Amino acid sequence: MKLVRYGEHGTEKPGLIDSAGELRDLSSIVADIDPYTLSRESLQRLAAVDPSTLPKVSGTPRFGAPVAPVGKMICVGMNYAKHAAETGAPVPDQPVLFMKATSAIMGPNDDVVIPRGSTRTDWEVELGVVIGETARDVPLEKALSHVAGYVVVNDLSEREFQFEHGGQWVKGKSCDTFGPIGPWLVTADEVPDPQSLRLWLEVNGHRYQDSNTSDMVFGVAKLVSYISRYMTLLPGDVISTGTPAGVGLGLKPPTYLRPGDVIELGIDGLGRQRQQVHAHPADQGNAR
Amino acid sequence: MKLVRYGEHGTEKPGLIDSAGELRDLSSIVADIDPYTLSRESLQRLAAVDPSTLPKVSGTPRFGAPVAPVGKMICVGMNYAKHAAETGAPVPDQPVLFMKATSAIMGPNDDVVIPRGSTRTDWEVELGVVIGETARDVPLEKALSHVAGYVVVNDLSEREFQFEHGGQWVKGKSCDTFGPIGPWLVTADEVPDPQSLRLWLEVNGHRYQDSNTSDMVFGVAKLVSYISRYMTLLPGDVISTGTPAGVGLGLKPPTYLRPGDVIELGIDGLGRQRQQVHAHPADQGNAR
Repeated sequence: MKLVRYGEHGTEKPGLIDSAGELRDLSSIVADIDPYTLSRESLQRLAAVDPSTLPKVSGTPRFGAPVAPVGKMICVGMNYAKHAAETGAPVPDQPVLFMKATSAIMGPNDDVVIPRGSTRTDWEVELGVVIGETARDVPLEKALSHVAGYVVVNDLSEREFQFEHGGQWVKGKSCDTFGPIGPWLVTADEVPDPQSLRLWLEVNGHRYQDSNTSDMVFGVAKLVSYISRYMTLLPGDVISTGTPAGVGLGLKPPTYLRPGDVIELGIDGLGRQRQQVHAHPADQGNAR
Repeated sequence: MKLVRYGEHGTEKPGLIDSAGELRDLSSIVADIDPYTLSRESLQRLAAVDPSTLPKVSGTPRFGAPVAPVGKMICVGMNYAKHAAETGAPVPDQPVLFMKATSAIMGPNDDVVIPRGSTRTDWEVELGVVIGETARDVPLEKALSHVAGYVVVNDLSEREFQFEHGGQWVKGKSCDTFGPIGPWLVTADEVPDPQSLRLWLEVNGHRYQDSNTSDMVFGVAKLVSYISRYMTLLPGDVISTGTPAGVGLGLKPPTYLRPGDVIELGIDGLGRQRQQVHAHPADQGNAR
């Protein structure tokens, strides 16, 4: 299933995309695409519904992030060897974890706002993993059974805030609009191998990132198992599994987002995102 | 007001502690001590209620964390000069931020469980700040008006996970049971100066930490203003403002928590916590 949340920010309704690509309303079946909806049992119940019995939604509504609330968003750093190289970091011998504030999460096509005073806002296409069943200290071989599904994530990052403002990366990862998720939450049964998905990102039509999840240093099962040793993963939590090479920081010279830019990104089978980049209101009209 | 959530884990009810120290049930007034209850308007409405009209709660129920859900928990590192010195770090020139997974949050007197394989689980008494009104890029002079109240936090930390497992501190901060909060959320009107509160922590009756929030490098108003530049603070978010000197890591030799230990900690006017320390089930019976 391709599960979505559609409608205006804060009043999204649950829906699904049927096999013909039509949006169908799920409000009569579930209240939202929330942690309760993502349990194995609940997803089985949803899968038994004939989509043709659900009301079609007319028009082209906005999509929100396809799961809410997200309890925590755990991101993985340096998880593609070429990306580690372009940032000057060694390939890690165990997963590098950091957090993105959940207040940064937004819909897949909402506007990205460059933070006040920022000159180094960067892009990162990533495979996102949405937890469906509580995972605490789970062995590798059972890890994928805790996954409800997969999403496209753009892990937007401000490199000066991340590396030069003291301390930990969270400062550069958590700005408002830095967490587009979606458009769809594609349930795990439709993603037989999360380690063979092409992922790509373009800015103004130029393709900067083009890789495959087969190149991850630590795969999804390993990440779920590993993270669950350190903290309990709860339904609705999102793991963003790291970005491949081709971010702005790694270009020569480094290239960052500017007001007016358009970001497009996607992952095979998981849909695509499109964000328009805007200046922060306090910076509008400033020479840059 | 001293607001609490009382009862068994997952089914806590809202309450308040009246001027005689009695627990009164607030269920007839608010659904929970949640982000909605913490708005300025809602707190004013609560303050107008005569506590003697609320039902007394008999017995001595468990306390949960006095706010739920917590959207994000942002912690401040090295925010007391002597603590920075004991860990070998310089005093930062701007606040060091990191995140604690919200899945680590628990009640003030719940059991602490040493993570599987851990030998370096440490304590940290901290003043916690609970946001009541959305704070986005707020100036210093308005920052405190976004604070609903204050709580005691024990920012438990696994030093090997934090410093030696690669990457960011979040691994050592987010284990289950590593976030006792409470017992009370004391509303800001009852804390006229958050920079003059004594805070202390004992293990097995020995006082390891004994300091005052007057020694913070960056005070509460500065922290709220600063953090709100990087991410929007939402009602129910918690900022844990850093720990003073006297953590186990800084002792000579370093001293860490062991099964059977009892941690007690408190802050003037905000109440006290008591945690019994237990081995992880997988480690029980192991020689340590």
